[in-house]
Amino acid sequence: MTIDELGEFGLIERIAGILPAAGKDVLVGIGDDVAVLEGGGGKVWLATCDVQVEGVHFLKEATNPYDLGRKALAINLSDIASAGGSPRFALVSLGLPRGLEADFVDGLYAGLREEARSYGVDVVGGNISGTRRGLFIDIFLLGEAERDEVKLRSGARVGEAILVTGSLGDAAAGVALLLEKSLSTSAGYAAIAQARRDRPSPRVAEGRLLGASRVVGAMTDISDGLAGDLGHIREKSGVGARLYAAALPVARENRTLALSARGDEWHFALQGGEDYELLFTAPKEAAAGLADLIRRETGSAVSVIGEIVEASRGGELELPDGRVVPLEAAGWDHMKAGKPGEAE
Amino acid sequence: MTIDELGEFGLIERIAGILPAAGKDVLVGIGDDVAVLEGGGGKVWLATCDVQVEGVHFLKEATNPYDLGRKALAINLSDIASAGGSPRFALVSLGLPRGLEADFVDGLYAGLREEARSYGVDVVGGNISGTRRGLFIDIFLLGEAERDEVKLRSGARVGEAILVTGSLGDAAAGVALLLEKSLSTSAGYAAIAQARRDRPSPRVAEGRLLGASRVVGAMTDISDGLAGDLGHIREKSGVGARLYAAALPVARENRTLALSARGDEWHFALQGGEDYELLFTAPKEAAAGLADLIRRETGSAVSVIGEIVEASRGGELELPDGRVVPLEAAGWDHMKAGKPGEAE
Repeated sequence: MTIDELGEFGLIERIAGILPAAGKDVLVGIGDDVAVLEGGGGKVWLATCDVQVEGVHFLKEATNPYDLGRKALAINLSDIASAGGSPRFALVSLGLPRGLEADFVDGLYAGLREEARSYGVDVVGGNISGTRRGLFIDIFLLGEAERDEVKLRSGARVGEAILVTGSLGDAAAGVALLLEKSLSTSAGYAAIAQARRDRPSPRVAEGRLLGASRVVGAMTDISDGLAGDLGHIREKSGVGARLYAAALPVARENRTLALSARGDEWHFALQGGEDYELLFTAPKEAAAGLADLIRRETGSAVSVIGEIVEASRGGELELPDGRVVPLEAAGWDHMKAGKPGEAE
Repeated sequence: MTIDELGEFGLIERIAGILPAAGKDVLVGIGDDVAVLEGGGGKVWLATCDVQVEGVHFLKEATNPYDLGRKALAINLSDIASAGGSPRFALVSLGLPRGLEADFVDGLYAGLREEARSYGVDVVGGNISGTRRGLFIDIFLLGEAERDEVKLRSGARVGEAILVTGSLGDAAAGVALLLEKSLSTSAGYAAIAQARRDRPSPRVAEGRLLGASRVVGAMTDISDGLAGDLGHIREKSGVGARLYAAALPVARENRTLALSARGDEWHFALQGGEDYELLFTAPKEAAAGLADLIRRETGSAVSVIGEIVEASRGGELELPDGRVVPLEAAGWDHMKAGKPGEAE
């Protein structure tokens, strides 16, 4: 059997089956956005890693090294944010092909420096290796949190509201516009989509507020697409979910583009991936207050987009006309996908 | 300018120049074997990462996935050992090409599991990504130590003895025997060299004892070759070093092979890389006692191989016939090298 047949999540499950149970200082191990490690004195360490691989996550000729450096850190910041933590220390593992211009590395690190500075992170070390072809930038990020403020994918309860920060589907539209030359949209929305694709904004301040709020149930960030990441919450919490399409924060241009490119106006919002927004649950009576808090303190919008239902109902999407359809939790499979690479 | 012209260490220096000074909780940042992070209560965290890239660090067709999994963790364990710390938590970032057999991943994780178990490490998370070609396994390892027991590359003083655990040059001989089919040695030594190449033994117990010993000045592990890693101690400590060739723990077969393959019987021992032994300094009067302690507690041999001298003398090698030659600190450049790949 090949890993393609297993898929990313099948492979993770297989690996988790090989490894022994973790020791007592591992509060959360494999299977959430971050590992949670005992830090002593009521504190925990949060640890995560994520990589950007040339030809899989980006095309070098279409990528500004400064943006790539920022994004490589941002996607890790988003994982720490999703647990309600504060990012602290990064290690950077670079794989570089022969003949790469030193200017490219300069640009990459200028972006890393700026992103690290913006979020109070110290780059404390790393590694440089050669590669036979193509470059990768793999980042390991450590964060910290109060033990009782950490939010996980588990923790959602039936009856809670489902909320999301910001907007959905723009980054996926940006990828589609890059790779599918036949697609078109307004110049204004194309610029937004490109910016959301190349310069994601991790919701670190939002995550900290939500971590400290005491009312949030489950939380994750949206990297695989809303349907896929909600699927992780459903699985880890043992619940079902109903989303209201009419409540999703999706730009009109995004729906138009999704309809023409994928035959489904909700496709980018639900399946697109790389939004790096926070998806979380909270008691319905607390939802409006939480949304106000986040808006006031960070300027970020928060939308109530659905509710947690019994597990037996699975994932449901209520369309604007009232019809209810199954919510496909396929999402973005980082191993199967290699989307940008497909265009080579 | 390309990164090849800068070389690995030129590039690291350039990157360090781009990044701002680290915050107060970063006790040691870029430029040592590990980053040292304030942990509170007299404890520190040690953080490091290192990667194995197909075609650069290993040839897939000549590699047992079990050994690769062990080695990928071992090279990181060696870094924690070199600081005198105890390894605790690992994250594993895998880059996998399409079509890879799931059995390969099973073998890799069986090796990782065994190596982690042997050294008391929990694998707490990671990431899986696709690649366009070839696989990589990038590991991030966290360790801990008492703050006043951490050893660094800085800390060597003039007059101290230079010591090394185990033996030198065998892994490099193993690489040469793999790639250069014209070379030959005894079947017995070929097996030793292959084992040292594919299954390095990180000196974790030895490192802890040396960290706790109070008399060790500087310490590092030998991954770039004795001359190169001693060069790091010289640079960070602001000292020179004289090595005694006759005292180097090098197998006779290794010297014979180095002479026929490289025209210099000390080549593999000095320039080979991947020994993963510990290189350290201590007052001369303490050297014999330290060596006894390590041998008694761990079974590992320790050799006194030289002494720290004034910086102005640079690196010197005293040959068995009494001649003194400059010690070339070229070592293994992970970026320029790509040794196994060269054979493709």
